[in-house]
Order: sequence, then C-alpha cells, then structure tokens
Amino acid sequence: MISVYKVGGNVVDDPAALDRFCRAFAALEGPKVLVHGGGVRASQVQKALGQEPVKIEGRRVTDAAALEVVTMVYAGWCNKDIVSRLQALGCNAIGLAGCDGGVLTAKRRPPKTLSDGVTKVDFGFVGDVTAASVNAPFLHSLLDGGLVPVLSAINHDGAGQLLNTNADTVAAAIAVALGAKLFYCFEKNGVLCDRNDESSVIPILDPALCRTLQAEGRIAEGMIPKLDNAFRALRDGAAGVVIRSADLSETGGTELKL
Amino acid sequence: MISVYKVGGNVVDDPAALDRFCRAFAALEGPKVLVHGGGVRASQVQKALGQEPVKIEGRRVTDAAALEVVTMVYAGWCNKDIVSRLQALGCNAIGLAGCDGGVLTAKRRPPKTLSDGVTKVDFGFVGDVTAASVNAPFLHSLLDGGLVPVLSAINHDGAGQLLNTNADTVAAAIAVALGAKLFYCFEKNGVLCDRNDESSVIPILDPALCRTLQAEGRIAEGMIPKLDNAFRALRDGAAGVVIRSADLSETGGTELKL
Repeated sequence: MISVYKVGGNVVDDPAALDRFCRAFAALEGPKVLVHGGGVRASQVQKALGQEPVKIEGRRVTDAAALEVVTMVYAGWCNKDIVSRLQALGCNAIGLAGCDGGVLTAKRRPPKTLSDGVTKVDFGFVGDVTAASVNAPFLHSLLDGGLVPVLSAINHDGAGQLLNTNADTVAAAIAVALGAKLFYCFEKNGVLCDRNDESSVIPILDPALCRTLQAEGRIAEGMIPKLDNAFRALRDGAAGVVIRSADLSETGGTELKL
Repeated sequence: MISVYKVGGNVVDDPAALDRFCRAFAALEGPKVLVHGGGVRASQVQKALGQEPVKIEGRRVTDAAALEVVTMVYAGWCNKDIVSRLQALGCNAIGLAGCDGGVLTAKRRPPKTLSDGVTKVDFGFVGDVTAASVNAPFLHSLLDGGLVPVLSAINHDGAGQLLNTNADTVAAAIAVALGAKLFYCFEKNGVLCDRNDESSVIPILDPALCRTLQAEGRIAEGMIPKLDNAFRALRDGAAGVVIRSADLSETGGTELKL
C-alpha cells in the first residue's frame, strides 16, 4: 500500500517541526510520497520584495510576479530543503514540480464566481488538478526504483506555463491516481469538535457528522475545503484518508469514512 | 554518445535567448543532459531583498541568506522555467538539484587562499564537486528511461546542508562521470582571439596555444577558470569539449584538444 503524506506551510516554515516531521517520515516503512506547502514563507518573500500578497477565499491570487515567488519558494527553497534533510536521514527523496518528468499537468483556472454567487475573480496563474492530471506510471517507476517523490504544488499546463496549485488538492489527486492512503498532516491533532481543545479530536468522521458539525459552526474556515478535498478523494478511490498532527510520533487523528 | 550542455546565466535570464536555446536543445538527437546557471537573476533578487551580492574572484560568497536566494532562483525559478519550456517542446525533461535522488554530493569548500597568496576567504555555503561526486548509475537510469536531466548548480553535502556550486564545474564533473561530450554554451561564439571581434573564434585550442594567448592577455578574466575546467574535463575522460554560442543554430565554436 502506497502512502501519500501532505504537510502544510506552518510545519514546513518551522525548522524544529519540520525536523521532527522529516525524521518520522524518513522512518516510515513502505512506498511513500510527500506533498508539501510553503505559503507562509512565500508571503514573507512577497512582502520583502514589495509585493502585496492577495488571497481570496483562502486562495492566493497569482500574477506573474507572485508566480515567480511561489515557484522560487515552493519548488526551490522548501523542496530542496526537505529533500536534502530526507537524504541525510537515508531516505532517497527526489524533489519534483509538476513539469518534472511530466508528473502532473494542471489546467489553468478560468475566472471563478465566488461563494457570494456574484463576484467573478481571475486568480491568475493558478491551476486545478484531478487524478487524471497525474502521470501515475512515472510515479510508480520512481517508487519501484526505491525513490521517494517529494512534490511541491507548482505545476505546469504542458504548454510552457507554470501554474500555482493547491497542495491539498495535489495530494488528493495523487492518492486517487495511485489508490493510496492519504494523510493530511498539520499543526493540529486532527479535526476538532472544539477548535480550542486539542484533546477534542473526532476519531471517525463521516459526511453526515461533517454536515452536522458544519451547521453548528464547529467545522469552519480552512477546514471546509480540506474536508471537501478529503471526502472527494475517498469517494474517487483513495484507499483511506486521515487528518492528523504533523508530529508523526503521536498516534490518533481523524479517519474519514463514507 | 551522451552530450552534456551547460548554458550560462546571461542566456537563462534573457527570455528570447532562452527560448531559442530550448528549441534547439529539445531538437537534439541522442541522450543529453543540461546544466544551467542563473547568476544574473540571483543578484537581482538579492538586491531586491536588501542583500549585497559579494563576489570574490568571480565566485559568490554565500551566507545563509544568499544560499536561500540562489536555491530559490537556480533550483526554483530558473530550473522549473526551463523544464516547463522543454516539456512543451516534447522533451521529457526532469529538473534536479544535487540532493534529488542523491545525484550529486558536494564537499563544502574550506577557507581558501586567494590568488594573491595571502588573503584567506571563507566562501560560506559553497561546495566543490568532482566526477567522483556524481551518481552516474542514477543519471544513466534516467537517460535509459528517456528522461532529460536538467540540473541547477545547487547541491548538498549528504548531511542535510545545501551548497552553492559552480555550474561549469558541475557540467564538467558530469561529462567526465558519463564519458560524455561537453558543450559550454554562452553569449559569445567561442574562445575569441580578439575579444571585441566575434568572428575571431579559435577553432581548435590546445594547452600550448592557450598558454600563449593567456600570456598575450587575449584569454583573460572569466575565460581562464572556464578553460581550466574544460581542459581538466578532457584530461579526466570527457569525450570532447566545445566552447560555443548558445545559439545552437550557429555552427562553429572552439574545440579543445590535448
């Protein structure tokens, strides 16, 4: 069984947390893939270069200048930092953006109507991916060769244009394409019933419970699109989905069921 | 016969020149490897971030902040820009830094005495490579799989530290390790007898002629370390070395002989 881990920007940008995560990830048995974010550092570099990061409904608006920054930060610094750490731990990691070996081809997102049903936004050089975007034979050939693919969420359209994509969506697409088990790892212990209480992890979450908790306002904000991605991945053929702490020495987390 | 092409920062940072180079490179027959620079853009980004680029005898002094910038620019933006262009041209490129798949492991350079014989300089996070640094079986496996490795000159020490290396040296090390023919491609037509006359290309250059031209001051500055690298590669087992224009539609250039 292949495992696909996704680790978010809050962990990637915290050297101590990243070190802990990499040590545990390197020690995991079996074929595995890592997808990482890096949005915190990207926003810092944008500001240092005099750009104003713009996010609408949690997604970064990516003009040409922002695309250069996210490509530099995600596919450059974050990706190579993680790969060199894993190599030092005996894990034969290989860093990839979607263009590398044609591993993932995204579609540029057309201008999109927001949740108010009225405003149309062009997110710029932003791409969307599905399981059909994934070059599964190439990933299998790397895994069969003992390599551990480490993907940033920078992809391309196959016609020479790089595109910024969402790392949760990339991880879900890969998990579905490989029939793998998907682990979303972040700074919390799982999906919480009370977001101020780290011990209130919901062990099993199905769509009915999810709808109830969302109606009660217990599941809100960034967790909503994450769960949308996660349930879709499960329906589309991922072997399982767990939302859990990036501290892999901790057991537990939230397992999704249909 | 494998070909190793190295293309410098003045070409990588010029979109029209890079486009011409990529089109011609994509069309080349046979197994091939590309190593690229990107120093012009790296210095621009350093300045935009308030860093002062420091170079001593043509080599960048790389502190932690500069290392992040060169990793972002070389392994991030330049590498993925080139790979996505090549993919669009039907060339199955895969971008690599030295850490990726452990393709190249550098040694951190100890403080070095400059050509004045007195001043000692610590270049910081700078690495040196030789043919022994190259994971040739991994490169062969990629080439056998129809992939075209595209390497930035960002490497690692195998213990988790990224290191900035010289792209000419990386290309030479790879050519020697693979017994490949090496092409140094840049903005001039070859090694010039008169540096102000692009038609004065020396077609064949051997060490004796090189010494004469150097004594006459015709070969100077950045061309000296480039030729040192080139002759060493030829002595160490590269199948040939040509210094030539990055406009691959042009014939000619300077072929080195021992």
